[in-house]
Amino acid sequence: MAQDAQPLLAIAQATRQAAQTLAGLSADAKNRAIEAVAAALEAHADEIVAANQADCEAAIADHLAKPLYGRLKLDGVKLAGAIAGVRDVARLPDPVGTVQIHRELDDGLVLKRVAVPLGVLGVIFESRPDAVMQIAALAIKSGNGVILKGGREAVGSCTALVQAIKQGLRKAGIDPAAVQLLTTREETRALLDLEGYVDLIIPRGSNAFVRFVQENTRIPVLGHADGICHLYVDSEADLEQAIAIALDAKTAYPSACNAIETLLIHRDMAVVGLPALAEALHQARVELRGDETACQIVPYLVPTTEEDWATEYSDLILSIKVVDSVDEAIAHISTYGSRHTEAIATRNPVTAAQFMDRVDAAGVFHNCSTRFADGFRYGFGAEVGISTQKMPPRGPVGLEGLVTYKYRLVGDGHISAPYSGSEARPFTHRDLPL
Amino acid sequence: MAQDAQPLLAIAQATRQAAQTLAGLSADAKNRAIEAVAAALEAHADEIVAANQADCEAAIADHLAKPLYGRLKLDGVKLAGAIAGVRDVARLPDPVGTVQIHRELDDGLVLKRVAVPLGVLGVIFESRPDAVMQIAALAIKSGNGVILKGGREAVGSCTALVQAIKQGLRKAGIDPAAVQLLTTREETRALLDLEGYVDLIIPRGSNAFVRFVQENTRIPVLGHADGICHLYVDSEADLEQAIAIALDAKTAYPSACNAIETLLIHRDMAVVGLPALAEALHQARVELRGDETACQIVPYLVPTTEEDWATEYSDLILSIKVVDSVDEAIAHISTYGSRHTEAIATRNPVTAAQFMDRVDAAGVFHNCSTRFADGFRYGFGAEVGISTQKMPPRGPVGLEGLVTYKYRLVGDGHISAPYSGSEARPFTHRDLPL
Repeated sequence: MAQDAQPLLAIAQATRQAAQTLAGLSADAKNRAIEAVAAALEAHADEIVAANQADCEAAIADHLAKPLYGRLKLDGVKLAGAIAGVRDVARLPDPVGTVQIHRELDDGLVLKRVAVPLGVLGVIFESRPDAVMQIAALAIKSGNGVILKGGREAVGSCTALVQAIKQGLRKAGIDPAAVQLLTTREETRALLDLEGYVDLIIPRGSNAFVRFVQENTRIPVLGHADGICHLYVDSEADLEQAIAIALDAKTAYPSACNAIETLLIHRDMAVVGLPALAEALHQARVELRGDETACQIVPYLVPTTEEDWATEYSDLILSIKVVDSVDEAIAHISTYGSRHTEAIATRNPVTAAQFMDRVDAAGVFHNCSTRFADGFRYGFGAEVGISTQKMPPRGPVGLEGLVTYKYRLVGDGHISAPYSGSEARPFTHRDLPL
Repeated sequence: MAQDAQPLLAIAQATRQAAQTLAGLSADAKNRAIEAVAAALEAHADEIVAANQADCEAAIADHLAKPLYGRLKLDGVKLAGAIAGVRDVARLPDPVGTVQIHRELDDGLVLKRVAVPLGVLGVIFESRPDAVMQIAALAIKSGNGVILKGGREAVGSCTALVQAIKQGLRKAGIDPAAVQLLTTREETRALLDLEGYVDLIIPRGSNAFVRFVQENTRIPVLGHADGICHLYVDSEADLEQAIAIALDAKTAYPSACNAIETLLIHRDMAVVGLPALAEALHQARVELRGDETACQIVPYLVPTTEEDWATEYSDLILSIKVVDSVDEAIAHISTYGSRHTEAIATRNPVTAAQFMDRVDAAGVFHNCSTRFADGFRYGFGAEVGISTQKMPPRGPVGLEGLVTYKYRLVGDGHISAPYSGSEARPFTHRDLPL
């Protein structure tokens, strides 16, 4: 651990201790705590909005970039929406205590694998003070303590929010140290060094920021940097569907990680369909870039460079590449995709199966928009992050990403020796009702 | 990626490509491949044993340490046992293809979460050439390619084994590049740098070796360094049971990670029970070390130093500490335990629940030996490693540790726009049969 981490250590230990109590609470008790937090936020709405107003004014004086400013702003309406979101979390099923394995190993020797909280979460986010409320609610629901680090520009807002949250916790009889706020940049580095004290880091911000976090901590990180998703329009695609999907996947929310950046199109389909496809996207004010073949078919495309294929535009820009086969599409995705979500439009079930089996990504979609890759849309009730790592949890992660499990084995003096050697007693390994 | 990794890259890519085919095989086809591997190993038994003989002779000439030599040796009997182990893997349930979530998001828009292979495993082990066979079988069963790196002293044995395995794969019509062998130390470092090409590293060897691997790669590592497990004998323990458990947990296999290193005993029980407990362990030739109180009760104990509590002896040595409460026992475990397996002996269910709820470890055991912490004993059929990390997979990990999952979403032209905004179409989120 770096030296910087020392002052933070006391905070982390206090959070861990508070989290131990949270971990033992019933679902009802946790839901009451969440309701108390929601009520406290309502009671302090004026102060929170005023603190945010001050942050916003300072941001204007500091010439904060416009999109950041938009995310910073928290007016009464947005606050009320976020508080409703807190109450939604109370209605989610409790992820803790679920019995995943229940097995008799032998007479009177019974194993259970039970879901338990991770312990302490470290959540680092840029701007967006409303994230504080959602994260605190999810942490309480999953029985975890949480150390929050907001952006410098939102310090006043975050402080007001966390004060209210702590007051709610206190009212519910819960140690307010369960939710902590850090405010300085130095503390971010120190937080990343707290291996063994913080169990999971969730970064929320730009790709560069997430990459920085991933590269500077040995604590597991839930999240993803780039989101370079593709739509492959096959020779046997329904062109009308493909156009609708491309439009939705590019324009519904261009800065989302599940928006597409590149459209791959089979040569046969390109010849007959690319003009209409390009026209529809052009009408929707998408800047279109194309490889040589695409530019030959649709002359108003801007020629792509190698860099285009590896870029997440996060904007109304789409690069188009003409391919000769589903294999070439898969190879392109394998080289440039970020293992997030990849879609194919085709009427041919064999081609679809090839694509979905062989593309290595958290999500593989057939005849639908990549925009569905989302925890809420998948029915998880909440989304704590989207992971593009290979190991689970992968893809959109709900509350189950904030819990782990432990094995509980109960015997009556059972020892291992009789189960070893040439006359070994066999295990029964009989599964019991969950 | 480091420069060293360049030559290895071609190997990793060949393995990844071979793995893609493996990933698509049916359970039957994979089992046939495993049988072909077992048959090929049998057919080449003489060459394998001879190659091992040569390795062993070189090891004697090199003055290889005796325990390492014991693990290196692979005679006909040990080989036959290992081949039987390969066939056992064929009988395990296929971990690939399991549908974990099956959900209608809306009419005609259906989500499935399906278990898929990780891709390419990197397995690095010291000595023990028999590990090659088990690992290759587990890799094939789980649809993964595997790059093996054995110890220098076992190069001849490993080469003979992998040649036979590749021949078996070829006979079954599978690209032999699915199983690769590296032989130089430089390649170990290069392997650890292959992030993006190797999906999971499994180190098998000493604690120091595992720690080295964990600290020198950004690829996920399945394994654990230290195994410092405790048995806490409560004031309300059944002394006879506690003695039997302590004996088993310490002496059945002292170098195992699930053996205990420290016995914690409640003061009240120590006064009446420690002499008998110590006598039983002493009779079993366990070297006993004790804190001040323990030494007062049992004078022949060697006084402990601070270092004892943090040491995995991997030998017939046990440190004993007298505590005043279950809280003190939990606090000691929290400071010195390695989150592997922790046991309590007590007849008091409330105390047991406190211990099991509050101790943070992969396994928490009540009135039974820590030695049960094992994939085979848990009924997983195989164990690919034991993880002491907080995030799943945690504890003993079976074949499920070698697979991940992907989300497959199938629609009929579904786009996200209708599900957004003030008149958003609701999702049905209806779970379908698995």
